[in-house]
Amino acid sequence: MSHTHSFHVSKSSVHLKWDNSLPPALTVDSGTEISFDLLDGGYNQFTSTSTASDVPNFNLALGDPAIGPVYVNGAEPGDVLKVEFLNLKTADFGWTAVFPSSLGFGLLHDEFPDPALKIWDLKTHASEGYTEFKSGIHIPIHPFLGVVGIAREQAGEFSTIPPYETGGNIDCRHITVGSTLYLPVKVRGALFSCGDGHAAQGDGEVCGTAIECQMKASVRLTVEKGKSWVTSPHYRTTGEHSVNQARLTGNGEYAVLGIDPDLREASRKALRGAIDWLVGEKGLTREEAYMLCSVCADLRIAEIVDMPNYAVSCGVPLSIFVGET
Amino acid sequence: MSHTHSFHVSKSSVHLKWDNSLPPALTVDSGTEISFDLLDGGYNQFTSTSTASDVPNFNLALGDPAIGPVYVNGAEPGDVLKVEFLNLKTADFGWTAVFPSSLGFGLLHDEFPDPALKIWDLKTHASEGYTEFKSGIHIPIHPFLGVVGIAREQAGEFSTIPPYETGGNIDCRHITVGSTLYLPVKVRGALFSCGDGHAAQGDGEVCGTAIECQMKASVRLTVEKGKSWVTSPHYRTTGEHSVNQARLTGNGEYAVLGIDPDLREASRKALRGAIDWLVGEKGLTREEAYMLCSVCADLRIAEIVDMPNYAVSCGVPLSIFVGET
Repeated sequence: MSHTHSFHVSKSSVHLKWDNSLPPALTVDSGTEISFDLLDGGYNQFTSTSTASDVPNFNLALGDPAIGPVYVNGAEPGDVLKVEFLNLKTADFGWTAVFPSSLGFGLLHDEFPDPALKIWDLKTHASEGYTEFKSGIHIPIHPFLGVVGIAREQAGEFSTIPPYETGGNIDCRHITVGSTLYLPVKVRGALFSCGDGHAAQGDGEVCGTAIECQMKASVRLTVEKGKSWVTSPHYRTTGEHSVNQARLTGNGEYAVLGIDPDLREASRKALRGAIDWLVGEKGLTREEAYMLCSVCADLRIAEIVDMPNYAVSCGVPLSIFVGET
Repeated sequence: MSHTHSFHVSKSSVHLKWDNSLPPALTVDSGTEISFDLLDGGYNQFTSTSTASDVPNFNLALGDPAIGPVYVNGAEPGDVLKVEFLNLKTADFGWTAVFPSSLGFGLLHDEFPDPALKIWDLKTHASEGYTEFKSGIHIPIHPFLGVVGIAREQAGEFSTIPPYETGGNIDCRHITVGSTLYLPVKVRGALFSCGDGHAAQGDGEVCGTAIECQMKASVRLTVEKGKSWVTSPHYRTTGEHSVNQARLTGNGEYAVLGIDPDLREASRKALRGAIDWLVGEKGLTREEAYMLCSVCADLRIAEIVDMPNYAVSCGVPLSIFVGET
């Protein structure tokens, strides 16, 4: 279904810093539906014909561009901005990169010295709901926005790469069409921006990139009063999300537990184990396995209380392997 | 369906330390099905009539007792012990406790000074698949074992409370009936033990206790050779797990993101936010909210790569609220 919008923000309204002094690209009333035309998370530096040899030339300073900001009339500090996700349409291609170790990006960056790039065809099997990683491995398309946020209280410029309590690059794959996000307003007008479309991602985004893609997004922005408990991003998902999740994990999953006193190290161990399994049992290269985990494997905290060791699981959905039962 | 076993380990074979010099309670061939009669994770210190006033008398030194060990013929260091979960039957009651802050147990122990105890009726609504937290809040019963492990390579005694790379108190709710767990064998015979039955738990077990219960468990233990990539607990779940999960999250979930450079602190923020929401919107006490999160809310790592801030989500399934759509 296509939507017609009176309110639209084009990709020319791009910014690479959160800054509450940015002039609004658009001013709307509470309850307005707005469409955005979004650059991808790499500022469209890669094309459908890019290869691994292009990765070292990637300029990380252009990472995670946001489109906006939108000033919402009536939004005051202490209010909540409700963001409803109405429509998310991916471009015809996407990409996943392993950046060179020197960039320090990705959960196992120190173990992956060489750049890698996967270009995804998001068109051919879109009607069947998946994209092919390689022969026999299909990843369900499940679009969401990596960057969704509003201006911070503090004056000055803040990189769009890390997330903040006002949102931003939260990379939360569960906030998809049908979901509602609640953000704590810090400045008058809220100053909402978004970007960084992802066609699919696992919990964690472990190699540092999802299936990155240009995207057209429609959201509804509404000011809500009196929700004082929203001091960081809160969200509500729908049953549709659960149904999609069950489809993804309908054959169960293969998972590895990382055990360590430090949760990040436990996560690294779990991921490393999942990569070892994908290499040992599924015949993937290590770079393929790392990228595959980033786009579909989930990092979950199994336990965070049994001192001194915590357990993180990295689970690969078995339904991605065509024909596996 | 009831199983008859030639091989059984009773709760008299209890140990509170992993110790590879423990004499086997039982010796079996690879492929044997074994039943266990398990003490609960609190060494049965609470009864169905216990109250919060009994919590300060709880002896944590008796926490997480394991039943075993079982010596498996043919298991050698470097092999993998495959554990298939065949049957898990809860007792008629369970409990969830908030221990006094002084014990330092639980993700927010410093914010919950007062002990609390919830006794769960696991019998009345067992055929409907749930247990009642309080009027209008139903928790699906989804049994698993918190403690599943084998002996460590190192000589000496190691507490059964933390998990290790040989398993133990992994508290991983996804490893349920139908699942298969793979553990890296470190000593001849593997020396398998288990315990700590949970009738339900969320990812993280945030208050430090799940729905703790006595349990009868049946597992099949099989030695596998040549899986060198299994260096920590690996597991495989089935579609049935996904279906149960979809049932649990069929109405979607309400979730809070915690944003912080430290994953444990991000987890604390996410949990604190979920508690604030349960108090503010659902009218629970803080202690109720903390315990409810421990038994059904999930901690997931949304992103672990957008330095310097990581994002952890704490999601409460909305299907637990009877009548909510």
